[in-house]
Amino acid sequence: MEIRPQLDTGSDVPLYRQLAEYLRTLIESGELRAGDRLPPTRELAAQIGLNRTTISAAYASLESESLIKGEVGRGSFVSGLAAHAPPARVDWTAALTPAPAAQPRSSQNGIRIDFTSSRPAAALFPLGDFQDCCRRVLESLELPRLLQLGSPGGYEPLRRHLLDRGVELGFVRPSDSTLITNGCQQAIDLLRRALVRPGDKVAVEEPVYPGLRNAFLEAGAQLIGIRMTPAGVDFDDLRSALNSGAKIVVITPSFQNPTGATIPESRRATLVEMVRAAGAVLIENDLYTELRYEGDDAPRLKSYDPDVILLGSFSKVAFPGARVGWIVGPRPLIARATELKQVADLHTDQLSQAFLLEFAKSGALERHRAHVVTAGREKLRSIASACTRHLRGCSFSLPEGGMNVWVKLPAGMDAAALRGIARQAGVDYLPGRYFSVARPLDHAFRLSFAGLEPDAIEEGIEILGSLIEQTGPSQDETLEPEPALV
Amino acid sequence: MEIRPQLDTGSDVPLYRQLAEYLRTLIESGELRAGDRLPPTRELAAQIGLNRTTISAAYASLESESLIKGEVGRGSFVSGLAAHAPPARVDWTAALTPAPAAQPRSSQNGIRIDFTSSRPAAALFPLGDFQDCCRRVLESLELPRLLQLGSPGGYEPLRRHLLDRGVELGFVRPSDSTLITNGCQQAIDLLRRALVRPGDKVAVEEPVYPGLRNAFLEAGAQLIGIRMTPAGVDFDDLRSALNSGAKIVVITPSFQNPTGATIPESRRATLVEMVRAAGAVLIENDLYTELRYEGDDAPRLKSYDPDVILLGSFSKVAFPGARVGWIVGPRPLIARATELKQVADLHTDQLSQAFLLEFAKSGALERHRAHVVTAGREKLRSIASACTRHLRGCSFSLPEGGMNVWVKLPAGMDAAALRGIARQAGVDYLPGRYFSVARPLDHAFRLSFAGLEPDAIEEGIEILGSLIEQTGPSQDETLEPEPALV
Repeated sequence: MEIRPQLDTGSDVPLYRQLAEYLRTLIESGELRAGDRLPPTRELAAQIGLNRTTISAAYASLESESLIKGEVGRGSFVSGLAAHAPPARVDWTAALTPAPAAQPRSSQNGIRIDFTSSRPAAALFPLGDFQDCCRRVLESLELPRLLQLGSPGGYEPLRRHLLDRGVELGFVRPSDSTLITNGCQQAIDLLRRALVRPGDKVAVEEPVYPGLRNAFLEAGAQLIGIRMTPAGVDFDDLRSALNSGAKIVVITPSFQNPTGATIPESRRATLVEMVRAAGAVLIENDLYTELRYEGDDAPRLKSYDPDVILLGSFSKVAFPGARVGWIVGPRPLIARATELKQVADLHTDQLSQAFLLEFAKSGALERHRAHVVTAGREKLRSIASACTRHLRGCSFSLPEGGMNVWVKLPAGMDAAALRGIARQAGVDYLPGRYFSVARPLDHAFRLSFAGLEPDAIEEGIEILGSLIEQTGPSQDETLEPEPALV
Repeated sequence: MEIRPQLDTGSDVPLYRQLAEYLRTLIESGELRAGDRLPPTRELAAQIGLNRTTISAAYASLESESLIKGEVGRGSFVSGLAAHAPPARVDWTAALTPAPAAQPRSSQNGIRIDFTSSRPAAALFPLGDFQDCCRRVLESLELPRLLQLGSPGGYEPLRRHLLDRGVELGFVRPSDSTLITNGCQQAIDLLRRALVRPGDKVAVEEPVYPGLRNAFLEAGAQLIGIRMTPAGVDFDDLRSALNSGAKIVVITPSFQNPTGATIPESRRATLVEMVRAAGAVLIENDLYTELRYEGDDAPRLKSYDPDVILLGSFSKVAFPGARVGWIVGPRPLIARATELKQVADLHTDQLSQAFLLEFAKSGALERHRAHVVTAGREKLRSIASACTRHLRGCSFSLPEGGMNVWVKLPAGMDAAALRGIARQAGVDYLPGRYFSVARPLDHAFRLSFAGLEPDAIEEGIEILGSLIEQTGPSQDETLEPEPALV
């Protein structure tokens, strides 16, 4: 058949894309069929009066979508079944269940200083130590067992290690057991499957980590947001959530994401007792505790009550790309969660379980943690100094560890709008609305600093500060005393 | 306090366990408190008139539960918080959601010949090739990226590889995309989250892989079992399932688990067209296709219709312990499943994704597959011969590949009862009831042969045959012609 595209040289759409679009239509309509050979680029270029590179670009674009296939020395051919098969018929919009709430995506191109992701710095990864651990595992007699189907509960030596460590740290009891999960996110997902019936009330922090909120929403939970103060959840809000029938309470006691807030030791027993007295289940999200850069450790909430369910992970202290986390909790709960784990994905990847166990037992994890804490202290000082100097008119509360600082803009300013301008200047962060349960958090945003170097932190905050001054209302109108972070 | 146990020397319960139980009661009641020192074994042995090793065994048992802790040179002490903390209070029976349907557990001790697990033989794992692939990945510049937080959709080079391979095999089209999952089980779990609303009718094969059934049940689906014939699903059953409003149909077209049945090429287009005409979504569980030991390949169902959703995995051909599977399907479906994947566990372990990609691209996967197919052919011939010679009065249909043979006992015999006897003889299998949707399948059982050597297969079937002859009704009463497998 003849190829006679109508191309618009005045259009914003490049000519090669117009040509590709035209060819696609011929293929999808069946005018070009599977196996048909397209004209050589030189020939088509001459025929329709275009540059040969334009033709090549159009072919490359179709090839990237597998609509055509180039064969060396033979030319380009229309691909296999694409043209034969019937057109799509299913109405996916109707077939699919509702989408989860908006989830942050990673930053796009053009961002030089990226505060969006609460993750460790890859530059700190101890690659040599990790490679050594992997080699030892790969050369061990365990390898065939690791490659074979495993146990839903997890790799037994890792389970043993985690329980022993919990006993040493004083929060694991004989009545506890553990389940290995694909990071903490799956721990949350399995717990909501084990504990939530549609309509159940679940109290979470507000602002809250969106992955936690979305998992409970998918279960049909009715979420109650407990406002955050610099000393952790507001007890009045917690009390009223419990009074209104919250069945589950999820707390990140140390360096909460996104606020960085930590519950002081003096308030922990009271918090546990409030939840306990109300007959609710308390889930302790223990991701950041070991990333303390300043001040003193507080005992885990689980130390105060055997019924508390504790979630942990290697992702924040070590490697998020290897998905290994865990739940420690009372045996009946762990037994049910393990059954649900089997339905979810049979078991967690065994190679990574063994690698991370070796990394922990060899002492490399603790060395790495010490290194991360030292680096984190510098980063924290850098962000503290930069926020204080540059974010005039904003309020923020500095954490003693973790990965995040929560910043509230001067009244009337919108964090999503500011983000648009910041991105043009090469700086990105996540606006408050991503962390919302029920309250609008448009005036706030999260700065995740753990993945950045001190210099970049300083520079990024300085840029944000000047953008706030340029676009925001004047300083004295906006400063308002406000103890709560939200 | 004084330790004065009342021990019953006539009991079946060993003395050390009676003593441990007594001490546990003292600890749990608070009579022994955290930090209290237990008497030295020699002293307590003399005091209560028992052998010192009995005392040591009791202490070891308590220590294994972390109730006490031995300190070298100082003695044994009651552990930290166990005695301080309040007793457990949550009523877990009430707090937990209903348990999934019964799930098979792996065999226990004393089983010499284990037909229970549909998994590959660890003895065939090409450890050297796999180690080489892992080393190349670990030494590559990709390592820091693999250890960092990844993309919910999966490791991009692996996604590209799978799509390219699907294009070559003729079932992937430009309208398709892919999502990497933790093995095929998670693919099923994510699809039910993306597609099933409570009460939706879902048609599955009967007998069916329990992990598939349980995932849809957890979603609140109403399951319809389509009976299996040696040529795959019964079309009359499928038609009536579609007429009754089944919204989703899940089919394993080749070497179905547990029956081993395969849909011939001549019936595939018709099947796809039936589902398509009814406006239902068709999920193709493509786990075993590449494990064909005899006969000719048939095209995948997805080749006939772009709307078909295809599930694949490295677990059956290569390593189930590294959890890497995938969904290939229309872009809107994959986009939603990817959002749900982020809620489920952020993304799949990146190390294993990279290892398996290297294993595939280096050619080691295809070499291994050829090896597994050669070995599988021998195993299949062995089980065919053994079943024919030894399982008199039973009916079975031999597959041309995969891992499973489905056996029906003479009328009146119960597969679960026979299992009890078989296990005493060191042979184990899974009774039909595990694979049931709505029909009782007590007369049938699954033999998974891929993990066993030909000799073991022969011996195991011979033992089963003689047990059936010893315990069952006579042969001529029971042989009944019956085309369907269920």
